[in-house]
Amino acid sequence: MFSPDTMSQLVNSFGLTVRQLREKQGWSQEGLAERADLNRSYVGELERGQAIPSLLTLKKLSVALDLSLTSLIDHTERMAQTRLIQGIALTSIAC
Amino acid sequence: MFSPDTMSQLVNSFGLTVRQLREKQGWSQEGLAERADLNRSYVGELERGQAIPSLLTLKKLSVALDLSLTSLIDHTERMAQTRLIQGIALTSIAC
Repeated sequence: MFSPDTMSQLVNSFGLTVRQLREKQGWSQEGLAERADLNRSYVGELERGQAIPSLLTLKKLSVALDLSLTSLIDHTERMAQTRLIQGIALTSIAC
Repeated sequence: MFSPDTMSQLVNSFGLTVRQLREKQGWSQEGLAERADLNRSYVGELERGQAIPSLLTLKKLSVALDLSLTSLIDHTERMAQTRLIQGIALTSIAC
């Protein structure tokens, strides 16, 4: 139910989502960090799935990216879903 | 932009949302804690807005409550909105 795989998949998907949304804006990690009132290296860790954000960090990032918190999480869940499907497809090719 | 008020409002709204959803299921804090693989006293702190959940805690609670993560956050944002409107209404009555 709460397998380490599912959880790290979620954290990774969140990081990829933030990177994707940041790049869409044409911002550097530093640019996003400043807008979100976060440390630049912490933003890097989040994007690489090496840090787990708190609810407040999620809120700060959503405000900086001009999204609702719900929308940021929705993007993350869609990213996790897409990666899961891609993983299944790759497994089928390999089998 | 990231006032302490806005942030504590969000954490409080999250706690109230969890309490409301838990009570709708007819579960005790202990019942929810077991289903979410969390400590009972931690669930109490979250419901009282005394602890800030991480993304993984949010995920665990959403799974336990049989909601998507997006839906749990959506409930929280609606709760925050409702409380904000109620606050404005009370201020108007007082003026």
